[in-house]
Amino acid sequence: TIISTLESSLSKKQMLKGKRILISAGPTQEKIDPVRYFTNHSSGKMGYAIAEVAAQLGAQVTLVSGPVSLETPPNVNRIDVTTAAEMYQVINSHFEDSEIIIKAAAVADYRPKQTVDQKMKKKDGELSITLERTNDILQSLGDHKTNQYLVGFAAETHDVLEFGTEKLKKKNLDAIVINDLTKPGAGFGVDTNEVTLLTRTEKKFTFPVASKKQIAQQILNEVAIDLGEQGK
Amino acid sequence: TIISTLESSLSKKQMLKGKRILISAGPTQEKIDPVRYFTNHSSGKMGYAIAEVAAQLGAQVTLVSGPVSLETPPNVNRIDVTTAAEMYQVINSHFEDSEIIIKAAAVADYRPKQTVDQKMKKKDGELSITLERTNDILQSLGDHKTNQYLVGFAAETHDVLEFGTEKLKKKNLDAIVINDLTKPGAGFGVDTNEVTLLTRTEKKFTFPVASKKQIAQQILNEVAIDLGEQGK
Repeated sequence: TIISTLESSLSKKQMLKGKRILISAGPTQEKIDPVRYFTNHSSGKMGYAIAEVAAQLGAQVTLVSGPVSLETPPNVNRIDVTTAAEMYQVINSHFEDSEIIIKAAAVADYRPKQTVDQKMKKKDGELSITLERTNDILQSLGDHKTNQYLVGFAAETHDVLEFGTEKLKKKNLDAIVINDLTKPGAGFGVDTNEVTLLTRTEKKFTFPVASKKQIAQQILNEVAIDLGEQGK
Repeated sequence: TIISTLESSLSKKQMLKGKRILISAGPTQEKIDPVRYFTNHSSGKMGYAIAEVAAQLGAQVTLVSGPVSLETPPNVNRIDVTTAAEMYQVINSHFEDSEIIIKAAAVADYRPKQTVDQKMKKKDGELSITLERTNDILQSLGDHKTNQYLVGFAAETHDVLEFGTEKLKKKNLDAIVINDLTKPGAGFGVDTNEVTLLTRTEKKFTFPVASKKQIAQQILNEVAIDLGEQGK
């Protein structure tokens, strides 16, 4: 098949041999009290698939992972975090030393402004919770990057291409992987995905529904080519 | 050992033979938008252990489960739900036909008052979310029960015995299993537990740290005895 041919030719080429790649995956959990928290539906599968394939292509992979129930892929250095603040800290500490950064994690945009150390007792009536913004990791990486190749993700439910294109520019990315969460074989939880890859150099690839591992191969193939063309 | 002797004598006796038991387990997820939600740290392990042991003791077990990554125990009829509202509905529809109800699920007390069908875009600054109370399933069961034997759980971080005793009375329970979440071998996520069981008949049992399956055996043993003493 085309995919297995692609897989074997990529592996043979070791297209990412020796490259230091930093990948983030999974959701974050933002604590309200010792029992309750905010989170999102990211399963981590897409980021883990990218980490697995990147390692097969010869890269030195560091995977910063939110709480997921997935096994660490072979030859991948995994660092577990829980909150957006921890994710920010770990990614920042590895950023300078990385050549490619792929931010597949679905980091919480908001966290409760106040958290309590004892379980809240419920009361009659409504309850209002104030949320504050977490640090925008991708924006921060885009603002501070020097020679790094930075890939973001956009998971949207409407106007996906428009949002994705805008995000690519606003966050100073080199490429963005755009997911339409409303498509049945795409997005969170499922084992398949269907994405559009846009590059800063205005290349646009549409990868039809395939396993997340196959999508990972296609993404990394185009990233490696784009990187090569920029002489990085 | 004491435990394996207990296990074998319980299994031999089939202490719950033919009893219709309804067990709830796991957390619920309360949607904010298609990506974000509130939840809690319940893993479902305690409820699943009770379902497994109850089936071994000959009971007809229906397990109403929130989203967990656990396998269904043998001979257990499992019904999956996501939200507190779904949990309420499924439990209500099985309640009349059940002889024993064990509510081990950690059902959300609050849900977002408004949910949106498109992913919210983040904005600068703080965000306030209004939460409303979900139905209190245990209170409703306690208020409406006729001949059913009703067991609740109390998972607390402080004044655990006081809260548990109060909950037993207020919710009109026959027994309550009290967890101290601050103890290292107890509560959410871990494979062990350490609980106090109180009955309406003022029996009090303290089960030291053991596997959740062993704790399940001890709870069901005392429930079966208490039930027998009441001629149910």
